[in-house]
Parts: sequence; structure tokens; C-alpha cells
Amino acid sequence: MLEVKTPKEALGIIGETYKAHRTQIEKVPINNSLGRVLSSDLVAIEHVPGFDRSTVDGYAVLAKDTFGCSESMPAVLTLAGEVLMGAASNNEIKPDTCVAVSTGGDLPEGADAVVMVEHTEDYGGGLIGIMRPAAPGNNIIFKGDDVSSGDIVLKAGTMLTAHDLGILSALGSCEVGVMKKPVIGVISTGDELVELSQKPGRGQIRDVNTTLLVAAAEQFGGVAINYGIIRDEERPLTDAVKYAVSECDVVLISGGSSAGLRDLTAHVVESVGELLFHGIAVKPGKPTIFGLVEGKPVFGLPGHPVAAYMVAELFVRPLVSGLMGAAVKRRIIPAIISEAVSSNHGREEYLAVIIGDDGAAKPVRGKSGLIAGLKYTDGHICIPRDSEGIPAGALVDIVLW
Amino acid sequence: MLEVKTPKEALGIIGETYKAHRTQIEKVPINNSLGRVLSSDLVAIEHVPGFDRSTVDGYAVLAKDTFGCSESMPAVLTLAGEVLMGAASNNEIKPDTCVAVSTGGDLPEGADAVVMVEHTEDYGGGLIGIMRPAAPGNNIIFKGDDVSSGDIVLKAGTMLTAHDLGILSALGSCEVGVMKKPVIGVISTGDELVELSQKPGRGQIRDVNTTLLVAAAEQFGGVAINYGIIRDEERPLTDAVKYAVSECDVVLISGGSSAGLRDLTAHVVESVGELLFHGIAVKPGKPTIFGLVEGKPVFGLPGHPVAAYMVAELFVRPLVSGLMGAAVKRRIIPAIISEAVSSNHGREEYLAVIIGDDGAAKPVRGKSGLIAGLKYTDGHICIPRDSEGIPAGALVDIVLW
Repeated sequence: MLEVKTPKEALGIIGETYKAHRTQIEKVPINNSLGRVLSSDLVAIEHVPGFDRSTVDGYAVLAKDTFGCSESMPAVLTLAGEVLMGAASNNEIKPDTCVAVSTGGDLPEGADAVVMVEHTEDYGGGLIGIMRPAAPGNNIIFKGDDVSSGDIVLKAGTMLTAHDLGILSALGSCEVGVMKKPVIGVISTGDELVELSQKPGRGQIRDVNTTLLVAAAEQFGGVAINYGIIRDEERPLTDAVKYAVSECDVVLISGGSSAGLRDLTAHVVESVGELLFHGIAVKPGKPTIFGLVEGKPVFGLPGHPVAAYMVAELFVRPLVSGLMGAAVKRRIIPAIISEAVSSNHGREEYLAVIIGDDGAAKPVRGKSGLIAGLKYTDGHICIPRDSEGIPAGALVDIVLW
Repeated sequence: MLEVKTPKEALGIIGETYKAHRTQIEKVPINNSLGRVLSSDLVAIEHVPGFDRSTVDGYAVLAKDTFGCSESMPAVLTLAGEVLMGAASNNEIKPDTCVAVSTGGDLPEGADAVVMVEHTEDYGGGLIGIMRPAAPGNNIIFKGDDVSSGDIVLKAGTMLTAHDLGILSALGSCEVGVMKKPVIGVISTGDELVELSQKPGRGQIRDVNTTLLVAAAEQFGGVAINYGIIRDEERPLTDAVKYAVSECDVVLISGGSSAGLRDLTAHVVESVGELLFHGIAVKPGKPTIFGLVEGKPVFGLPGHPVAAYMVAELFVRPLVSGLMGAAVKRRIIPAIISEAVSSNHGREEYLAVIIGDDGAAKPVRGKSGLIAGLKYTDGHICIPRDSEGIPAGALVDIVLW
């Protein structure tokens, strides 16, 4: 019996299954951590910077020695030395002296400002003319200004970007604690499917979903195991599911989930595990199945690749992220829709769109064409469940892929 | 001598260097091709689908047999068989007969429409009632409807997405010809730099740029070789650059490119190669250097990580893509800016922004803080060269990362 859920209910049920489960934590070298999910908060255990630094090339001074100076009336200071890059300054600024310092150099003892070299003149003989007055604090970043010891700098659950790796580096994390990638088993069912290497005969098509879902699993932050094409029969499908759950954190079965002639997936999940729902009030993807086998989440996805991918994006991605303690961050942008779309009462509808050069959202539709449906799109819009449709020119929210 | 270029001029000069150069082509298994760049147009050599297919579960019919039928006056047809999934139909539709067919099944000879099972009733005894008339072509995708043999389905230079892998699968590409990933050498210079594993003393900071640029190289589609920290001296830097160009397609040197005290990078590039420009009228990143050593592009990037990354994004990414024959696709969205930003006459300025919950662009500014500057942002806006600044509430274009 179909127990059709709303998308929100479905996400709630899916969310319960990962609430108590997380993948393990592992340590990886920082250079292998791009795109991985941080396992715990990164707390600074030192100040950054660890010393007062100049932010420009110039001269460290006592600000009050520069007050009132100008191009026509420079303050003339005695050059008392130079701060070497990478070394602690061993100079102390006394009144009417200055010390040369480069960008990033250690601020000499007593200095309270740095004057940019562009606003100075070297008169030779150890005399430097200062053309512009400096206020205390000018061109200095003070110890701990950027981060203080004890600050939480990155939150657990962050999917690490290049910038985050920069932050980890600055704080000396050579190794990073990250969540293990969820292992995602991919099974395709359907007696009409043939391997990629075969030329399909009449009534046959190549197995697109395996490749598509293996790639999706990788994009979602997981690692895929491909179990290939399984015949649409109870025994081989049951065996494949049981074997896959023994090796994987999540199993995706595509095909065989139509309420039509060959409704095997729900039956198999029910007979060896627990069926949590069968059907989501969403287009595409109504016949989506979700359950637990040996405590592991198992999805039954539509057989049509475009629908399978959409359902994976909407319902599998949050699960994969959730298993790593991360939330899916979807970028939503407003746009004008370029043409009217009709309603589909009773089901939320997700429609792929392309963003035109004019910034407008152009819906991508057509027959159930496989390749046409897989062509490049920028994101999708959602037509609400009880909508009368969306007129051309209306403002819509595009959820970018 | 500084030869400052506009960003456009700089991109033009960079573009010349990859115009005649491409990385090699290699074949990879389709499951390893996600994110890789397609080396040549994908031309379909067969029709998709290869046979007329039903797009629903139902009954294949002669449309004219259903004309005028309704719920109260069904057309009653004789069930003449069933199309098995994965098999060629061996039935032929004769007047007043129908054949059961599943979604994706081969259309029987003579049929010109399929009626969805939901609009039929099985009376038993081999009789099927049709409740809704079908027009010829209903619920059928015809041979070649999706793609015809000879169609260009994917263009050379496409960076392959999961959807593209689906298309390749449908056409039977088990192996995919892709461009080799450009090899990107990363060198950090600066006597103030210490390795990540070291605790910086006064005057020292950890080498953030190596990690950041290695991750950036990977994000841009390349593969990085890390040459570590090189002292700010002519001989070691020259040796490192010569060694790196012998192994890499592109070399990135960060640090040492200020026009201040330690202006080594330009000198080294000039002495062992050809300096093409020194300086871009852009903030951040003015002291950016670009040249050729042994014919290989070499960049000198700013030492400050936030600036180094911005310059890499704006100028190195197009080069890395160009070496693979791909164009950088930047997603630009309009937004209202939440606060005024001041102008910076004479230099284009790139300012990182965060998109607020209200959709407004909030500029991210501050001192030259390292970590503050590396915190999450959504993209950047460009303040034009001769702008008077941008007032709060103005419409800006955000270039998303």
C-alpha cells in the first residue's frame, strides 16, 4: 500500500535515521582535506598574529613624532635600524627615531604606528623624512587582532573549502579530523538494462543510473560501491540489497519502483527490513521508497535517470550530509520566470531551469527524453503543491545545483 | 619597472600563452571522469532511444480505436499479449486489440499510442476497457526523438557533471577522452614563513599560501606539486623556478612580489625567462607578476593569502581552464548592496561579499586579518576603475565563487 508523504515529512523521516548515526572520524593530511567535513570545532590555541605586525612596507615610529608634519614640513627622524623578515625586532623606538619594517614584519618595541614608505623620503646619512602624520595604531595589526586563543574559528560540520584550509594552516593543523565519507551502494534494476559496453537491442537501453548515481554519491561527499545491474526478481534483488547493506552506509536502488507491473523494491525492503515510506507527493519522484535494512537506510529511486537524479539531490544528499554531521547549504537566488508553467495539483513539482543571459529562469521541459533531460541546467524551481501554476514574468526562487 | 596592466589586458596576455598550448588527451574510465574536461565533441553514433518506447505503464493501442470513448462509454479492446521488459515486442496491434506495455517497453508493431493503466479497466477474460481517448503519438517517445545519430551531444571543453556522465553512459562511452590535468607548481617565498608543523616565533607566521594554492589548483581542475618554502634569495628561488617549470605546466610563486624591499620574483622571472607584465590595476593584487620561463607560464602572486587567492581565482583559473580548452563559467547574480563602499580611483577593486538572509550583498572588509579575510564568503563584486564608490542600496552583480 502506498503511504504517500509530503516532501517535508519524507525529509523528517530520513532525518531521524541519521540523527543517531554518524560516520567515524578519521585524520587526514591537510592537503587531502578539501571538500571533507570537519569532525569537531576548530578552536584556536594561540593568538593570530602572534605578535604586533606591520601591514605595510615603511617605517615604525612613535606616532606623536609625526604629528603636524606635511610634504612641505616633514618630520625628520633618525633611522635606528631595520627589522629583518622572519626575525624578532631587536630595536626599540626612542623619540625622534624610526626603524624600517616590511609588510608583515615584527613591530619594534615602543612603536605605535607605521608610516608607508610612499609617504617618506630617505635623505641619506641615516635621516628619514616623514611627509604625513600617523595616528597611533596606523598600519598595525596587533597580536590576537585576527584570532584570539580560545576562539572557535571553524564549526564542526563545515565542508572544507580552500579558504578553510588556509585557516587550518594558519593555526598549524597539519592533520585534520574529518568525518569518514559515507559508503553508498548503487544498484540498478530493470530487465531492459544492458551494460554500457553493449549495444542495446530492441526493448533495451543502457544502464545510465549506475554511472549517474555513482557520480552523484561522489558529489554529495560520499564514496560509491557499484553493484551493477540486478535482475527484476525477488531473490537476486534481496541478495544484492543484503550484501550491499553489509558493506555500505546507504544503499540506492534505482528502477523497479513504479507502482506498475514490477513493484519489487518495496516488497524486498519490507521483507528483509522496515519500509518507512512508499511515495512522496513530488514530481518527479512520486514512487520513491525509503526504508531500513539491518538499520541502514535504503532508497528506492525512480528508474528514469532525470527523476532519479532529482530525487537523489533532494532526498539522498541531505542524508549523506547528515551522516557526516553537515547540513546541505543550498544557494537560492531570485529570478523572473520567462514563461508560464502549469500547475500539478496535489504534488509539489520540481522543474529544472536554465538562467538566460538576461538573468531570467527558463524552464526546461519536454518529453521523457533521456539525454534532453540530462542537458545542462543551472538549478530548479519548486511549484508548490496547491499552486494554480506560475505565470510568465513572476518572481521565482531558483535553487542552484 | 612596473608595467601595470588593466585586468582585461592582463587576461589577454595570459590568454595568448595558452592559445597555442593544450595539455595532452588521455582516456579515463567513465566513473573517473567527473569534473574532467571533455577532449572532443561527443557525437551520437546511434539513435536514442533505439526503438519506439512507451513512456508510461499501460496498453499500446491504435488511437482510432479509442476515439470517442469515455468513463461511461469505454472502448473495449481484446488483450493480445504483453511486451516483456528488455525484449522486442513480438506482437502486432490489430484493430480492436491492445497489448500491455510497461514504462520504457518496446512499442508493438502498428501501435500509435499508449493509454495509461490509470485510464483503463481490466474486465477479465482478456478484455480491457479504455476510459479516455488517446491521440496518435500519446505517451510514446519515438526512435531518435531524444538524439539522432550524428548529433553533437556534448561539446569539447565541457567540464563533466554527473548529468554529462549520464549522457555519456546512454551513448555507451565506457571510456572518456579528457584533457590531462595541468600540473601546477606551488612555491612560497618569504623569510618570515615557517612550516605548518612549527610554532611561529616573533616575526614569523606559518606558510598558509602553499596549502591554499594547492587546494585552489585542485579546485581549478589541475593537480598540484608543492615545492614548499623557498628563501627570499635569488639563487634558491631561481633554482626552484627552473626545477618547477621542468615538471609543471604552470608555476605559482606567492610572496616576494611587493614592489617594496624584496622584489625578487620579477627579477628571477626576467633573468631566466620573459617578464610579460608586472602589476595589474586591481585591488587586491596590484603587484601580480606574469611571465614565461622555458615557455611555461609563471605567476608571482601577492604574499597575503586573501589577495593571493583572489588573484588566483581571477587570473590563474582562466589559464588552468584554457590549458584544457575550457572556458571559466562564472555565475553572476544581481543583488542589492547592504552598505556603501568607497571608491579606489585608478584600480578596479574586488570585494568579497556574503549574501544575507534577505538576499542583500554584505561587503566583507576589515584589517589585513588573515583568518577574518579567509572566512566564508559567497562571491565578490567588482567596483569599476573610475567609480566614485557604490552607495548603499545600489544594485550590484555578485560573481559567485
